[in-house]
Amino acid sequence: MLSKQYKEMLSQKSVIRDMFYFATERIKTHGAENVFDYSIGNPSVPVPEAYNKKIEELLENPDFTSIHGYSPNLGILSVREKIAAYLKKTYDVPYEAEHIFMTSGAASAICHAIRCVVEAGEEVVVFAPYFPEYRPYIELAGGIMRVVEPDTKAFQIHFDKLEEVLNEKTAAVIVNSPSNPSGVVFSDATLKKLAAFLMEKQKQYGHEIFIISDEPYREIVFDGKTVPYVSKYYDNTLSCYSFSKSLSVPGDRIGYLAANPSCAGAELIASMCGQISRGLGHNCPTAFIQQAIGDLIGTTADLSVYETNMNLLYDAFTSLGCECIRPDGTFYLFPKAPEPDARAFCDKAKYANLIFVPGDSFGCAGYFRVAFCKDTKTVERSIPVLRNFMRETYGI
Amino acid sequence: MLSKQYKEMLSQKSVIRDMFYFATERIKTHGAENVFDYSIGNPSVPVPEAYNKKIEELLENPDFTSIHGYSPNLGILSVREKIAAYLKKTYDVPYEAEHIFMTSGAASAICHAIRCVVEAGEEVVVFAPYFPEYRPYIELAGGIMRVVEPDTKAFQIHFDKLEEVLNEKTAAVIVNSPSNPSGVVFSDATLKKLAAFLMEKQKQYGHEIFIISDEPYREIVFDGKTVPYVSKYYDNTLSCYSFSKSLSVPGDRIGYLAANPSCAGAELIASMCGQISRGLGHNCPTAFIQQAIGDLIGTTADLSVYETNMNLLYDAFTSLGCECIRPDGTFYLFPKAPEPDARAFCDKAKYANLIFVPGDSFGCAGYFRVAFCKDTKTVERSIPVLRNFMRETYGI
Repeated sequence: MLSKQYKEMLSQKSVIRDMFYFATERIKTHGAENVFDYSIGNPSVPVPEAYNKKIEELLENPDFTSIHGYSPNLGILSVREKIAAYLKKTYDVPYEAEHIFMTSGAASAICHAIRCVVEAGEEVVVFAPYFPEYRPYIELAGGIMRVVEPDTKAFQIHFDKLEEVLNEKTAAVIVNSPSNPSGVVFSDATLKKLAAFLMEKQKQYGHEIFIISDEPYREIVFDGKTVPYVSKYYDNTLSCYSFSKSLSVPGDRIGYLAANPSCAGAELIASMCGQISRGLGHNCPTAFIQQAIGDLIGTTADLSVYETNMNLLYDAFTSLGCECIRPDGTFYLFPKAPEPDARAFCDKAKYANLIFVPGDSFGCAGYFRVAFCKDTKTVERSIPVLRNFMRETYGI
Repeated sequence: MLSKQYKEMLSQKSVIRDMFYFATERIKTHGAENVFDYSIGNPSVPVPEAYNKKIEELLENPDFTSIHGYSPNLGILSVREKIAAYLKKTYDVPYEAEHIFMTSGAASAICHAIRCVVEAGEEVVVFAPYFPEYRPYIELAGGIMRVVEPDTKAFQIHFDKLEEVLNEKTAAVIVNSPSNPSGVVFSDATLKKLAAFLMEKQKQYGHEIFIISDEPYREIVFDGKTVPYVSKYYDNTLSCYSFSKSLSVPGDRIGYLAANPSCAGAELIASMCGQISRGLGHNCPTAFIQQAIGDLIGTTADLSVYETNMNLLYDAFTSLGCECIRPDGTFYLFPKAPEPDARAFCDKAKYANLIFVPGDSFGCAGYFRVAFCKDTKTVERSIPVLRNFMRETYGI
């Protein structure tokens, strides 16, 4: 018979997808140039030429089994070595190849990480506002998701609320910095405090509590800032990375999990991920894409457009009186809606051709997400439409 | 803490991988030309030029988001349409795009299929000799694997043994024709009998029993034979396909699941797989690879070398008096060992530079698998070595 659990999930629609679908339909009647779809986080800057060129070179290699043959089950060793060397050099954490497991993007890395350190019935803590897909990642692995209420002043961590939520059943905490949807980077002070808190709790409960660090936006930062590297603060950290945003290749499905060399079972994590894969039917990302990124680690697409867009939209929303944390990075803005119900706000905005996602599904009611991975001209054209909508609807 | 289950799995080595590792090490001391590694099923024929060319064309498309952007979560619609049309035309089963879910190879398709129709604690029946990875696919999804003892005469189905194993907790039966490791194709008579048997049992137990049909070798058949299409015989069939073998691209991770349009919940299966993916961190195979195979469905690499190799090795083993079913397809041969313990036989053979895998891990003790995806010259050179080994060790 059909699985009850997955059958029931069919009725639980994703709000992001719903808004994206609305935008797609509305484009048909109102024209692409008139609909401003800020719903979905699909990177919008060109893929580096070197990446496509590298793939083409690989495909021309007459030794076809070295290109199209099976990848080893933890990933191609030379690529894992290059990633370890890059991370070591960049973040001063002494990774070796044995700590790296190749994955199909950050989603796959997180799903492996959860199975690695969370037993069925154990809890995983997330900080609101959080990426909504954490819930299926955790729950479909048998874990229980616990939400720490947001710190809506600085969008750092609300430690009093964390204290209430964390308990002896906590196996892991997901950190996402820079954050989808707030765009905020967790500060040095926040990470120090979090690390100290978790180390204390580990001692108290007598077991490890892992940080699963979701880092696909690591390279998209503004105002010349840097992103404190979570694993540097706390040994029991599994870093989950994707090249989707930095190279603008989300459809290519390529990323990795990096286990801190000082974490519990550091030498086992990648091999355990290999075993986990056997049950997920994940047999590594595409082998030739692994090889291509092996030569491009540290390279990024030209990501400057995101900062330009952020400045335009941040100025527009704040000049309209919207409370809004200034993003440190990502391609998201997370303003407070001009009425208490952000869903009502988004429903009105969409008929003015402005497609946003209400914060409710990110665990942060009253706010909404603006995914500004668009070309700057589109962003510029959307601003008068936004001003007009806010004036007509809210008298702002 | 580290997951107990996956930590314990680390000590359970794969015999296939062990033999492959032995071969790799032995090559270092004895030279690649002297070691005959028949351990692993890595396709050995060139990838069709059209496939690489198609990818290169796609990469040159300036509309980079259409190439490197996210795939829809069930796969790219136009590709699903083409697959449905191909299957409809080829096998006369009226698939539509809604029945097709794109996967990272057959492993991913099977893992999705199991979660779709097997609840935790329910049973999945496999026929020995079976592909060893079925066990983690089933058990790590919470199912229980039940093995039907082999029919070592014809390597079809031992129906008396099936009758003993199947019960009201059976949710699915895995069929693999052509079979890894026996190379045998399930005949029209076998599939008719299996379908009638399962239909009877469905009625008796009052619930569906699905066939999960694992079909990566569908196009590799010998002696001009055809492979009866399992889904044509039994409505409740989920067909799991991979392009790994037909296009010689196992590292590229591309395949699909096709739900029979008359199966229970046919219109839900692909969407349910989309939900299952959210828990596995599987966000579709690489988008541009989906697009590339969209134009190549039905095309195969030149697979004729496998038949040439099969004939050479089949003749060699049978002329040495080894009992051996003649493979209908695949690139495997499954002879009976010349001593009762096939592990002992393989351990002796490997020191004669002949690397085989004992049948024990396929649920069929006393037999061994020969993966002959090699160039024919290598196969030819291995035959005198085999003859010599059999004479010296067994006086044959």
